[in-house]
Amino acid sequence: MTLSYNQVAARGLERIAALSDGVFAIAMTLIVFEIRVPDPGVVRTEQDLWAAMVALGPRLITYLLSFLTLGIFWTGQQTQSHYFARSDRHLAWLQLAFLAAVALMPFTTSLLAEFITLRPALIAYWANILLLGVLIYASWRYARHAGLVKPDAPVGLSAAITRRVVVAQALYGLGAAIGLISPAWGIAFIVIVQLNFAIAPRIGILARF
Amino acid sequence: MTLSYNQVAARGLERIAALSDGVFAIAMTLIVFEIRVPDPGVVRTEQDLWAAMVALGPRLITYLLSFLTLGIFWTGQQTQSHYFARSDRHLAWLQLAFLAAVALMPFTTSLLAEFITLRPALIAYWANILLLGVLIYASWRYARHAGLVKPDAPVGLSAAITRRVVVAQALYGLGAAIGLISPAWGIAFIVIVQLNFAIAPRIGILARF
Amino acid sequence: MTLSYNQVAARGLERIAALSDGVFAIAMTLIVFEIRVPDPGVVRTEQDLWAAMVALGPRLITYLLSFLTLGIFWTGQQTQSHYFARSDRHLAWLQLAFLAAVALMPFTTSLLAEFITLRPALIAYWANILLLGVLIYASWRYARHAGLVKPDAPVGLSAAITRRVVVAQALYGLGAAIGLISPAWGIAFIVIVQLNFAIAPRIGILARF
Amino acid sequence: MTLSYNQVAARGLERIAALSDGVFAIAMTLIVFEIRVPDPGVVRTEQDLWAAMVALGPRLITYLLSFLTLGIFWTGQQTQSHYFARSDRHLAWLQLAFLAAVALMPFTTSLLAEFITLRPALIAYWANILLLGVLIYASWRYARHAGLVKPDAPVGLSAAITRRVVVAQALYGLGAAIGLISPAWGIAFIVIVQLNFAIAPRIGILARF
Repeated sequence: MTLSYNQVAARGLERIAALSDGVFAIAMTLIVFEIRVPDPGVVRTEQDLWAAMVALGPRLITYLLSFLTLGIFWTGQQTQSHYFARSDRHLAWLQLAFLAAVALMPFTTSLLAEFITLRPALIAYWANILLLGVLIYASWRYARHAGLVKPDAPVGLSAAITRRVVVAQALYGLGAAIGLISPAWGIAFIVIVQLNFAIAPRIGILARF
Repeated sequence: MTLSYNQVAARGLERIAALSDGVFAIAMTLIVFEIRVPDPGVVRTEQDLWAAMVALGPRLITYLLSFLTLGIFWTGQQTQSHYFARSDRHLAWLQLAFLAAVALMPFTTSLLAEFITLRPALIAYWANILLLGVLIYASWRYARHAGLVKPDAPVGLSAAITRRVVVAQALYGLGAAIGLISPAWGIAFIVIVQLNFAIAPRIGILARF
Repeated sequence: MTLSYNQVAARGLERIAALSDGVFAIAMTLIVFEIRVPDPGVVRTEQDLWAAMVALGPRLITYLLSFLTLGIFWTGQQTQSHYFARSDRHLAWLQLAFLAAVALMPFTTSLLAEFITLRPALIAYWANILLLGVLIYASWRYARHAGLVKPDAPVGLSAAITRRVVVAQALYGLGAAIGLISPAWGIAFIVIVQLNFAIAPRIGILARF
Repeated sequence: MTLSYNQVAARGLERIAALSDGVFAIAMTLIVFEIRVPDPGVVRTEQDLWAAMVALGPRLITYLLSFLTLGIFWTGQQTQSHYFARSDRHLAWLQLAFLAAVALMPFTTSLLAEFITLRPALIAYWANILLLGVLIYASWRYARHAGLVKPDAPVGLSAAITRRVVVAQALYGLGAAIGLISPAWGIAFIVIVQLNFAIAPRIGILARF
C-alpha cells in the first residue's frame, strides 16, 4: 500500500518533469524564430546579405538573453524538483502555472526583439521574468509547507533558495529600472546578471550569490 | 514469460505517456502564438505600444483559458494512467484519438481568439472540450471493461471519475449555452469553472465536485 | 563488463525512443496548422464563419489522414522497438532516417491539403508513406541480421511484421493508383485502410490482416 | 548519503538528456518548414505542381543536410553522455550552450535554403556547425578535467573523441573553404562528409576515421 502510494507520487513527479522538459525545449527552440531570415526580395548580393546579417545583431542578443533566462529557470526547477519527495494536486498546478509563464517567453522575447528601444516591451519582458521567479518560489514554499520536501534535504537549502530568488529578482528589477532610463543599458545589465548566474565566476562580489 | 509480457505492457504505457507529454507540451506552447506581437509598421511610439498591449487582453484570456483546459486534461489523463496496469492496441488508439483532440486545441483556440464575439467560434471551442471529455472517459471505460485497470485501484475510483467528467462537461455545456446568448459571458463562465478545477477551492457548493 | 555493455545498449534504445516520441509528438501537433483559421478580413458575420468552417472540411480530412498515418507508424515503431535487445550505430541511423521521413509528414500533408485535387500532391503524400514503410521494414531486417533482436521474441514475429508491412503498403499503393484516376476516391480509400488498421474490426476479409 | 548524491547526479543527467531529446526533436521537425509548399495562387495545373515540386529540390538538399548534421551531433552527444558518471553546474551550462547552438540550426538552415548561392549564408551555416563541434568538445574536456567521466570508460576513448571532432571539423572547414569558391560544391562536399559519418562505409580512406 505504501509502495503503491510512492509509485503514484514518483510517477507524478516524473510526468511533470517530462512535461517541463518538453515545454522548455520548445520555448528554447521557438525563440530562435525571432532571428528572422532576411527578405530575399530585398537581399540580392553578398554585400546585402552581410549587411542584413549584421543588422540581426540585436535579435541575436535577444535570443541569447531568453536562452539564458530559460536555462536559469530550467536549472532552478530541476534542482528544486530533486528535493520533492512527492507531488500533490496544488503543487502540480503551481508547476503548470510556472510552465504557462515559460510558454509566454517566446511571446515576450518576440515583443522585445521587435520593439527593443521601447520601454513597454522591456517592462513586459521583465514582468515575465518576475512571474517565473514568483511561481518557482511559490512552488518551493508550498512544497515545504505541505510537507512534500524530502526529509533528507540539506539544512539551509530553503534559505539558499530564498536568497537566490530574492537576489536574482532584485537584480532583474534593477535592470528593468535602468531600462526605464535606457532600454539598451537595461538589457545589457540583465544579460550580464544572467551570464553571471550561468557561468558563475567565483570572483568579486558576485561570487557571494 | 510473464515478466516479458509485463515489460511489453509497461513500455507501452511509458511510451504513450512520453508521447502525451510531448503533445501537451507543444500544444501548451503553441497556443501562445495567438497573442500576436503588434505590427511594427503601425506601432511607433511607447503610447502606441501600451495601447497595442492592452488590446491583446482578450487574447491573453484565450491563452489562459486554453492553458487551463490543457492542464486539466493533462492532470486527468495522468491520474487515470496511473491506474492502468497495462495497455493494449485499442486503448493505445483511444489515447491517440485523445491526443488528436489535444492537438486540435491550438486551432480552436486560434479560432476563438480571432472571432471571440462570434458564436460559431465558441461552439467549435466547446466541441473540442467535449471531444476531450468523451475520449478521456471512453479510455477509462474501455480500460475497465478490458481488465486493464490495476486490481488495487481504490473502490469508488470509477464512480469518482465518471462523476468528475459528467459534472465538468455539464458545466462546460452550460457555459457554451450561456455563450449562445453572450459569447463574453460564456467564456467568463468557462474560465471560472476551470479555475475552480485548477485551484480547487474547498468552499461553497463547488467543493462537492 | 557485460553489464556496462547492456547499459550502453539500453540507454541507446531509451534515447532513440525519447527522440522518436518527440518527433512524432511535434509532427502530430504541427499538421493541425493546415486547418487554417479563416481570414478575419473576409469573415465578418456568424453566417460567414459557419460557411468558412464548413469549407475547412477537406483540411480536417487531411488532418485525420495524417494523424492516422503517424499513429500507425508510431505504434509500429513502438512494437518493433520492444523486441530490440540493443542498438548499434547502423540501426540508430536507420531509425534517424525513419524520423526524417516522419518529420516530412507535415510538409506532404500541407501539400495535399493545399492541392487536394491535383495528382502530384497525392503521389508525394503516398511516396512519404512508402518511405516510412521501407525504412521501418529496413530497421527490422537490419536488426534481425545484425543479431539485435531479443532471443525470446515470439516465433513467427518476423513473418507477421513482414506480412503487415507488405499488405499495408500494397493497400496504400492501390489507394495511390485509385488516386491517379480520382484523387478524392484515392484519399477516401487510404483513410478507410488506415481506420481499419487503427480500429481493427474483426469482421470480414480485413480481419485477416 | 553517497547514494543520495548519485541519485541527484543521475537525475541531472536524465533531465538534460530529456531536454536534449526535446530540442533535437523540435529542431529536426522545424527544418522541414524550409521546404515551402508552393503558392496556390501561382500553381493551378498538375504540370505547374510538378514544376514547383522539382524546384523544391535544393530545399530538400538543405533539409537532408541539416537532418544529417543534427543526427550526427545527437549521436555524438548521446555517446558522450553515456560515459558521464554525473553532472555539475558547469557541465549543465556547457550542455545548455550546446543546445542553444542546436536550436540555431533551423535559422541557419533557413538562411542557407533562402540564399544557397551566396557565400555569407554558407559561412553562417558552417559557423553553426563549428560552434556545435567546439561546444561538444568543450563538454567532454570539461567533464574529464572535472572528474565527471566514469572510471570504467575505455582507454583511448578520449583520444578517439578528440580525433573524431578534429577530423570532422577539418572536413567541414574544407567544405566551407570550397564553398568560398563555389557554394554548390561546398555544400555537396559537406553532404558527402556527413553521409560518410552517418553510413560509415568501411571502404577506402574514409574508413579510417
